[in-house]
Amino acid sequence: MRVLVVGATGLIGGAVVEALRPRHEVVAVSRSKAALAVDLDDPGSITRMYQAAGRVDAVVSAAGLGTFGPLADLTDADFLAGLGNKLMGQVNLVRRGAGFVNDGGSFTLTSGVLSRRPMQGSAAISMANAGLEGFARAAALELPRGIRINVVSPGWVAETLKAMGMDPSKGTPASEVARAYLSCVEGSATGQVLDTPPL
Amino acid sequence: MRVLVVGATGLIGGAVVEALRPRHEVVAVSRSKAALAVDLDDPGSITRMYQAAGRVDAVVSAAGLGTFGPLADLTDADFLAGLGNKLMGQVNLVRRGAGFVNDGGSFTLTSGVLSRRPMQGSAAISMANAGLEGFARAAALELPRGIRINVVSPGWVAETLKAMGMDPSKGTPASEVARAYLSCVEGSATGQVLDTPPL
Repeated sequence: MRVLVVGATGLIGGAVVEALRPRHEVVAVSRSKAALAVDLDDPGSITRMYQAAGRVDAVVSAAGLGTFGPLADLTDADFLAGLGNKLMGQVNLVRRGAGFVNDGGSFTLTSGVLSRRPMQGSAAISMANAGLEGFARAAALELPRGIRINVVSPGWVAETLKAMGMDPSKGTPASEVARAYLSCVEGSATGQVLDTPPL
Repeated sequence: MRVLVVGATGLIGGAVVEALRPRHEVVAVSRSKAALAVDLDDPGSITRMYQAAGRVDAVVSAAGLGTFGPLADLTDADFLAGLGNKLMGQVNLVRRGAGFVNDGGSFTLTSGVLSRRPMQGSAAISMANAGLEGFARAAALELPRGIRINVVSPGWVAETLKAMGMDPSKGTPASEVARAYLSCVEGSATGQVLDTPPL
């Protein structure tokens, strides 16, 4: 398959690229570091990315920014940033990308465990993640030509915990998280949220 | 208790007002039909509403607009309208209202069954509803002074089905939906999503 990976230079995206490469053709996209660039905040940039990439069999997004911070300190701009980038950026990858995806292809997006297991400081991110899961469940009912859509909802990633000076054994290695994306690309599920690890 | 009800002239909001009135003081708010008005799209209007209402023990919101339509036809504006009104409008009722709610008070917001049981045409609404549920779960961890927050997620309401020429027995009467709001106002739950009927 020909698989477009948005966020290809990130921790999870990079692991997804590594997992895909032995079996598929990968088109790597990132904000600035890959051959193809996209700005999820800008719908026009998303369309230009698809036009440059050409037709694909699958789109994986491991991208999207949100702001972490105490509820009382989060500003209107913080809430809107998460809605514009992590939520609508990924929604627009689907809305603007469906015409570039071959029959029976798929979208695999990224939310995160905070959607259903929040913590202090996660209000804006929990909101964007949960919204994305709601969108995907609904969009699965309407995408044309057998195109599927799923969301991977990663918990803490071992490498992230290590970088933060925390115990990496409490997280899931990125290579293992990547397997959930692979199963979405190669499998037949649609409208699902895959938690890594299961909640 | 003194309970502010936003959306007080709507089907569900009206039933909530009726259920509250025998036991509580109700401050009714709507877009245009109640004594106090609010425009959920406008954060300034929300602050002015609270300033006019004064301190309350509980805020109930049975308000929020979203656009229903085929995924392929929904515009950027349709998605943003749901995010601005039903999602951020209610989020801003909490963010801008917490300072007006007495210790141990509560917020009770409204999502809808489409957050987790989508149907064709519900992508923008499912997204806004699910985002609101994610926000409430997270905000429950951080609201000050014992203030609680919950979301009621109504399924089809009998009166709505009747008005649409459908079988009302397949829905829940608004008076029964209202009991879920009452239990949120008078009970001790926080961070919960109450489905009426249970999913």
